[in-house]
Amino acid sequence: MKIALDAMGGDFGPDPLISGADLAYRTFGTHPVLVGDRKILEERIRALSLKAPFEIVDSKDVIAMTEKASDVRRRRGSTVWMATELVKRKEVDGVVSAGHSGASLASAMWVLGRLDGVERPAIGTILPSLTGHFILVDGGANVDCKPSHLVSFAHMGRVLARHLFSKKDPRVFVLSNGEEETKGNELVQRTIESLRESRVPWFSGPIESRDIFSGEADVVVCDGFVGNVVLKEAEGLAQTIIGMMREAAGESLRSRIGGLLLRPSLSRMKKRLDYAEYGGAPLLGVNGLFVISHGRSNSLAISNAMGMADRLAKSGLTGTIAQDIAKIPTGGSLP
Amino acid sequence: MKIALDAMGGDFGPDPLISGADLAYRTFGTHPVLVGDRKILEERIRALSLKAPFEIVDSKDVIAMTEKASDVRRRRGSTVWMATELVKRKEVDGVVSAGHSGASLASAMWVLGRLDGVERPAIGTILPSLTGHFILVDGGANVDCKPSHLVSFAHMGRVLARHLFSKKDPRVFVLSNGEEETKGNELVQRTIESLRESRVPWFSGPIESRDIFSGEADVVVCDGFVGNVVLKEAEGLAQTIIGMMREAAGESLRSRIGGLLLRPSLSRMKKRLDYAEYGGAPLLGVNGLFVISHGRSNSLAISNAMGMADRLAKSGLTGTIAQDIAKIPTGGSLP
Repeated sequence: MKIALDAMGGDFGPDPLISGADLAYRTFGTHPVLVGDRKILEERIRALSLKAPFEIVDSKDVIAMTEKASDVRRRRGSTVWMATELVKRKEVDGVVSAGHSGASLASAMWVLGRLDGVERPAIGTILPSLTGHFILVDGGANVDCKPSHLVSFAHMGRVLARHLFSKKDPRVFVLSNGEEETKGNELVQRTIESLRESRVPWFSGPIESRDIFSGEADVVVCDGFVGNVVLKEAEGLAQTIIGMMREAAGESLRSRIGGLLLRPSLSRMKKRLDYAEYGGAPLLGVNGLFVISHGRSNSLAISNAMGMADRLAKSGLTGTIAQDIAKIPTGGSLP
Repeated sequence: MKIALDAMGGDFGPDPLISGADLAYRTFGTHPVLVGDRKILEERIRALSLKAPFEIVDSKDVIAMTEKASDVRRRRGSTVWMATELVKRKEVDGVVSAGHSGASLASAMWVLGRLDGVERPAIGTILPSLTGHFILVDGGANVDCKPSHLVSFAHMGRVLARHLFSKKDPRVFVLSNGEEETKGNELVQRTIESLRESRVPWFSGPIESRDIFSGEADVVVCDGFVGNVVLKEAEGLAQTIIGMMREAAGESLRSRIGGLLLRPSLSRMKKRLDYAEYGGAPLLGVNGLFVISHGRSNSLAISNAMGMADRLAKSGLTGTIAQDIAKIPTGGSLP
């Protein structure tokens, strides 16, 4: 598969990006198409002695992290817009960007467009659980949602879980403030009603945020505001607890030795919590494969994001979502 | 101060509750008024050799955790209703209940009533941060909120922070999906606008969930659905990380020894994360002091909840909130 990479986006410049693309070629056989300033990229490829058969598409304009997402519409020569156009023209099978995530979303919406029947594309963020991983939809694309949006997030999340985790019957939950179906705010209650009425056999009901990391759920559905709160809290709390542990381990000679002995085991644990394992979050509901990576991605994260894009392109994620969404009864009632 | 305790509510029966009341008497000098089945309570007080000068108000009806919260209105002889009536009649200075939290809320609303100008009472939940504690309002009482509700949560949370943390100028934030005031869903954006328009000098703007544990905020405001998600995620994630650590520490002889050496430091850390430190969450905006405790509270949590109720009654929390709310300009614009 050929995967385009916005080779200038991200917090640390092109080096971790192009090293990640090189690693993806060596690990997954993914053919990297770099979109960025040809002169800079060729110079960095030489400097880092990278050997992958890079294709380069020249683009000198980068949407900076501090700029407005909507600017991208007026800057069709920007790296993220041009990389997305390669997908549209079927010159590549998917695109990865660690740049301005609002600009990525806007490019995907404007260049690729929404799939028929999808009111709102959503981000499928992959998080670790005690037994593996689960998908949170929406990871932050839509801050105000209607029940019909959440219903389509449930469908799209389920398709992603089947493609990504190779599970025939992923368990799909709606995030709520209690396990009882009588709990929930109005949005959640109406979403649950709608999913119950449509009699999809795979809907498992509401789940509390305390249980989402237990491994019980493959997909957890919520609006993008709540999704953002959940994601960033996990990030902040993991850092806080690890910070407290580090402090605890430095308290006495005894605990310092304990900390040293535990270090290899703890670094394996940290790896499990690390977002780099999947490296990115696919945008669900647009007409083409777009994987959004963290601005702070290192080369391993980029390589894994490109590997994921490669796998999802091969397995035909976009086509399966299109077929699945076409089957949703409109109006939330049975056909 | 005299504090009433719903002595039959909670997941583990009266023993941890009355032991907690005894501990509160010895630690804070709080006079405990137990509401529950006199015969059972007297028998358990003897069996546990408790020495506090308990007053007992006889009540044989308990709202079970599985019953409906609204049932409490038809059961005015239930422990939680009768305990709340003691506050109303000024026979005690506050009440603590670890029973059915919906029934606690309903009792407080019906028996004590709302303070003038408060549309929706809210729960002020106290959470640990890297440098101390912060208050999350609403911790779960109102799942669907308007901007005016969140504005009053900000005011009430600030008053609670002043009483609880003895800070003259607590920093009050609104939980959002970005640090920029242009982010947020409609509810959050309109809340921020309203607080900016009212020109309260203590409003610090939006905060992301990743930063709420850093110690920067004294008060974090959100609707009760999001508050519940934040609280339960913190609980679930702390357990998951501690579970992973335990697993990591058992992986090899080397890491087992490391884990043993670290144990005293880690148990101090666990104590910091423990909800028992404050033991309960005050209900803000009702006409009387009501502290809601966790159903799984142990005696230390109950003792601390009673001690907090004692302090907040002494410092006149309810009166200060009433005065502060009276000053909020209605309609979200300047007076």
